[in-house]
Amino acid sequence: MIKVGIIGSTGYAGAEIVRLIQGHKEAEVVWYGSRSYIDENYSNIYGNFFELVDAKCMDDNMDELAKKADVIFTATPQGLCASLVNEDILSKTRIIDLSADFRLKDVSVYEKWYKIEHKAPQYIEEAVYGLCEINRDKVKNARIVANPGCYTTCSILTAYPLIKEGLIDTDTLIVDALSGVSGAGRGAKVANLYCEVNESAKPYGVASHRHTPEIEEQLSYAAGKEMVINFTPHLVPMNRGILATEYASLTMKDGSLPTKEDIRAAYEKYYKNEKFIRLLPDGVYPETRWVEGSNFVDIGFKIDERTKRVIMMGTIDNLVKGAAGQAVQNMNIMFGLDETMGLSMVPLFP
Amino acid sequence: MIKVGIIGSTGYAGAEIVRLIQGHKEAEVVWYGSRSYIDENYSNIYGNFFELVDAKCMDDNMDELAKKADVIFTATPQGLCASLVNEDILSKTRIIDLSADFRLKDVSVYEKWYKIEHKAPQYIEEAVYGLCEINRDKVKNARIVANPGCYTTCSILTAYPLIKEGLIDTDTLIVDALSGVSGAGRGAKVANLYCEVNESAKPYGVASHRHTPEIEEQLSYAAGKEMVINFTPHLVPMNRGILATEYASLTMKDGSLPTKEDIRAAYEKYYKNEKFIRLLPDGVYPETRWVEGSNFVDIGFKIDERTKRVIMMGTIDNLVKGAAGQAVQNMNIMFGLDETMGLSMVPLFP
Amino acid sequence: MIKVGIIGSTGYAGAEIVRLIQGHKEAEVVWYGSRSYIDENYSNIYGNFFELVDAKCMDDNMDELAKKADVIFTATPQGLCASLVNEDILSKTRIIDLSADFRLKDVSVYEKWYKIEHKAPQYIEEAVYGLCEINRDKVKNARIVANPGCYTTCSILTAYPLIKEGLIDTDTLIVDALSGVSGAGRGAKVANLYCEVNESAKPYGVASHRHTPEIEEQLSYAAGKEMVINFTPHLVPMNRGILATEYASLTMKDGSLPTKEDIRAAYEKYYKNEKFIRLLPDGVYPETRWVEGSNFVDIGFKIDERTKRVIMMGTIDNLVKGAAGQAVQNMNIMFGLDETMGLSMVPLFP
Amino acid sequence: MIKVGIIGSTGYAGAEIVRLIQGHKEAEVVWYGSRSYIDENYSNIYGNFFELVDAKCMDDNMDELAKKADVIFTATPQGLCASLVNEDILSKTRIIDLSADFRLKDVSVYEKWYKIEHKAPQYIEEAVYGLCEINRDKVKNARIVANPGCYTTCSILTAYPLIKEGLIDTDTLIVDALSGVSGAGRGAKVANLYCEVNESAKPYGVASHRHTPEIEEQLSYAAGKEMVINFTPHLVPMNRGILATEYASLTMKDGSLPTKEDIRAAYEKYYKNEKFIRLLPDGVYPETRWVEGSNFVDIGFKIDERTKRVIMMGTIDNLVKGAAGQAVQNMNIMFGLDETMGLSMVPLFP
Repeated sequence: MIKVGIIGSTGYAGAEIVRLIQGHKEAEVVWYGSRSYIDENYSNIYGNFFELVDAKCMDDNMDELAKKADVIFTATPQGLCASLVNEDILSKTRIIDLSADFRLKDVSVYEKWYKIEHKAPQYIEEAVYGLCEINRDKVKNARIVANPGCYTTCSILTAYPLIKEGLIDTDTLIVDALSGVSGAGRGAKVANLYCEVNESAKPYGVASHRHTPEIEEQLSYAAGKEMVINFTPHLVPMNRGILATEYASLTMKDGSLPTKEDIRAAYEKYYKNEKFIRLLPDGVYPETRWVEGSNFVDIGFKIDERTKRVIMMGTIDNLVKGAAGQAVQNMNIMFGLDETMGLSMVPLFP
Repeated sequence: MIKVGIIGSTGYAGAEIVRLIQGHKEAEVVWYGSRSYIDENYSNIYGNFFELVDAKCMDDNMDELAKKADVIFTATPQGLCASLVNEDILSKTRIIDLSADFRLKDVSVYEKWYKIEHKAPQYIEEAVYGLCEINRDKVKNARIVANPGCYTTCSILTAYPLIKEGLIDTDTLIVDALSGVSGAGRGAKVANLYCEVNESAKPYGVASHRHTPEIEEQLSYAAGKEMVINFTPHLVPMNRGILATEYASLTMKDGSLPTKEDIRAAYEKYYKNEKFIRLLPDGVYPETRWVEGSNFVDIGFKIDERTKRVIMMGTIDNLVKGAAGQAVQNMNIMFGLDETMGLSMVPLFP
Repeated sequence: MIKVGIIGSTGYAGAEIVRLIQGHKEAEVVWYGSRSYIDENYSNIYGNFFELVDAKCMDDNMDELAKKADVIFTATPQGLCASLVNEDILSKTRIIDLSADFRLKDVSVYEKWYKIEHKAPQYIEEAVYGLCEINRDKVKNARIVANPGCYTTCSILTAYPLIKEGLIDTDTLIVDALSGVSGAGRGAKVANLYCEVNESAKPYGVASHRHTPEIEEQLSYAAGKEMVINFTPHLVPMNRGILATEYASLTMKDGSLPTKEDIRAAYEKYYKNEKFIRLLPDGVYPETRWVEGSNFVDIGFKIDERTKRVIMMGTIDNLVKGAAGQAVQNMNIMFGLDETMGLSMVPLFP
Repeated sequence: MIKVGIIGSTGYAGAEIVRLIQGHKEAEVVWYGSRSYIDENYSNIYGNFFELVDAKCMDDNMDELAKKADVIFTATPQGLCASLVNEDILSKTRIIDLSADFRLKDVSVYEKWYKIEHKAPQYIEEAVYGLCEINRDKVKNARIVANPGCYTTCSILTAYPLIKEGLIDTDTLIVDALSGVSGAGRGAKVANLYCEVNESAKPYGVASHRHTPEIEEQLSYAAGKEMVINFTPHLVPMNRGILATEYASLTMKDGSLPTKEDIRAAYEKYYKNEKFIRLLPDGVYPETRWVEGSNFVDIGFKIDERTKRVIMMGTIDNLVKGAAGQAVQNMNIMFGLDETMGLSMVPLFP
């Protein structure tokens, strides 16, 4: 049994890790870290675990935790993981960090967008960006996996094959995305109260959201050149789900535009064997309800011949493939398990 | 592997059976019956099953189905199961009926409340009311299991021990219940449109809801005498969940009222070993979010010394313990499997 | 023009007063009190008032405010109004208090249920309980009006005529109520976050909610004897609306139960000329959507001959008739205006 | 008093016209047309009008109606208005058509996108596109006003000044829009059931939605040349509201990009005196909750210097400014009334 420690286990992403590990036959949680609820019964905080989890919340003593856990998930605000990690810890355990601390390779970009000093820049280089479908091989032996953001996972995977295959003009990519409210976390803020969010939709972080450089960095690797994009997140009234609608101009090849068969072939080239990516049939577009509670990424697309653009659309459950599910998927890869172990949930509908 | 046939597989309860059987290691669906969608791909109707279910919808030919299936789930409107069942079918397979056809022992009560003629009254006597926690032993060998209604499952289990132990005055029971919208089914009706239901709460079926005689019959068995109750269902804007808040006057014993320890002891006497019933600690009351997607029944209570009444509260997921989950639980009992097989999902939150 | 001052103008009830006064042709807001947002533009807090309200938030200096305002609405937590009011203030202005400070005539009941010391018990006697339809005459000349609670307004008005006319057994009244989330206020609490409330229903304050003694006191006046009731509030996922479903045993008269005509006659006796109370036709029950945004109280009922009980159902918009609307209605009465002035909004649907 | 007839008064847009006319002091509804509910009390269909509207639903006999009404609103499916209108009717009354029948000047475009034959192409030329803020002068004397679509009203007004002033590259405009569910109408369709829509977001009509040519036609007039755009609508779980997020490359002038002051100046040039358009301060973006129930259009923008694009964002209430409110605004213009009459509602929040 893999012994799992969680720092930040009472946030939404942390609790989702707990849910997934409950259904994982080769792993068990040995440390429910939660600075806010130390010594409280975990199931007092999350009533769904009543009679399922019999444990008290612990602090975030990573040194202590490193002795007990084979892997530590840090589902914490930016900066915490970087402030705690050190060589001694990494000699005893492995870390899957759900914050942004190790996602960006350029520390100055991190410090500019997140407006905090990076406390452990020496580990940035070795940390592996844990977008499983793309970096699977590097994840295997990583000591630190930077688990991707929710918007980024969806945005990158939806466009990746077309960029990789040169089918779209990388200067034209626009990502317009919607998110359910759990992405905003469990902090007590007026802006996230039921009545503030319900019956409304709003853009936020316009041209300034922190997931922008993360998407750009990864897509730039795919493009083989630097990409700059527009990314606009919107908050919509639902618990879970991300929908990314992406626009790009198609590139001409030999005087003609790519066909829908070309586009589909590109997606299949990269995702044909991916168990968590479902390429939808022509004319079918993703809806967040069809992935809720699961680790799936659903992708569809449409060519608009009038404007010579392709519209790419992808959906994930932000707490699963966008956070806890991908973290468990990374754990499976790191420990040599079947990548889908504990992640075979059918999406819950309605 | 148990071969499962479903008639009505494209209703919400039917689709939930499909979801649960997908996660059940000793059963598989061999027949996706759906009169409305014959020959369509099942995953066209329910996109969550895309790449998980590769099958077309079939008709409701129960004779044919009986040859192929070890058990047939009928998740259909009232009257259909009774109109199809016959001795030949029952000689080849077993039936778990999610409609009301075989729930009431008195056919005249059925015909009065449902306003349809019963087409197979000869099977009413042998049919077993499949409230697992109470009728487990009878379910084992049943040919026909009448799977209880959603409101009824919740309402009965919440009050059962106190009635059984004579702690409440059976003439005073009032059940006030809330339900999510999936309980209304997937029929295209104006009343169930998003905009009609959202941002509103309403009572319906006041003093006339069809689950009333079902609750009364079962509780009367527990009481050892005939009970008549008030039952008021309300529709509230959420997908899943039933919450029953029940009121009854406490009975005096030796000049004093039962204490909360007495009440708790009664619940524990009947439910201590029940894996799907969670008796909440003092001061904690059930919330539908804590059981969503699971087969749990959460129960709490409060004595009001000012009015000498006890308020009993119970929650279930109407599609799981209130329909598909209990149906699978019955199947497990009927086929000698561990009763929890395929039903160990952690409730999904948020 | 009546000059209106509001203390607590940035809570939901306070903002609803602002909305209503905007549409009131004989009143204007001269003081937008908000301790939390002093000096901020009011329309920064509530974007719906952008370009409609050009004012900054002020403190809660009631002495200063008393000089400027003809009437002060205190839409603040319990205890604040009582701590600020004094003879000098009351010599200059009149107060409509939306908190509970002056609702209960017995200060010990107040202190027991609210667990705070009452700072101005000398004004309790003269304060008028502002349930307009019942206390209209006393409101006219009041210096202090205690604006009723949301649950209480709905609960009392729904049962009042039947109690007044002796049609129900006052020992048997049970009030089971649902509320939208705006009733919980705009404080930043985890329990009221979108993801905590959405897709769930829960009871709370079981046998202990503070509106219980308020309902009991007023209904006791109607009954002419002390009443003790059960009151169970539930939170359901919607912004606005209260639905009270109330149960009571019918009283026999001359050996027979009251008929539905008797019940209707009782309602009509008290409400026939009430513009804000709509008595629904037989078989029609209230739904919160039909009163949203308006000052209406919709009432329906059903006799259950099997149990000899009547089920009474009422709905209001908790922020209008349950708070700001009733406050404006009280203001209209106090200043000799048409009672419906500024309150003729058609309910907004969908 | 202007006598108003409504055909399609029991759809959501029709009912919203009824609500608005109730609060309009110079108009009254004399005909509640509804083919589906002939002879039923209007307030049976829409309980919010109980005791406010005392009328029965009528048929859609436009000849008869023309004799009684000064203006007819047709809030009906595409094709109906065109099939009924004739010279005799137009000699007696005026028509505000909320369907698409007279919005597009090129009948072949209409027939291609709507896939129905146009029954009255002879009136297309004279019909005025009733986007009040742009076509006010033409509306005054129109016999037929084509009331704009909901998405189109929001999409056009949000981009119009920047196109008019040549600040953006018209080849690059992308409109990504979200809508509440009332935009889908009140038809009984599975796709619009509560459980199908709730907790999900989805794109639809990708590169094929019928509002596309309408947006293109109007923006082409502004641009002075033909424009082709991408328009992607999405359904999100809320009753009301449209949010359009629009992207376009900024045009260089004299070697430099327009500044935010340039952009703001363009908006102010066209909208400074518009009472229903609210240009938000820098850094503030529109949210649908701030316009709910009102006729406002809220607009904000952000320049992204990294990509040299501007992101324009606009919100409306789809049933008010996107349908009934704009129709009443057009009526006010046509009859020489103050344009805001009956439309001064403060947005309802929460």
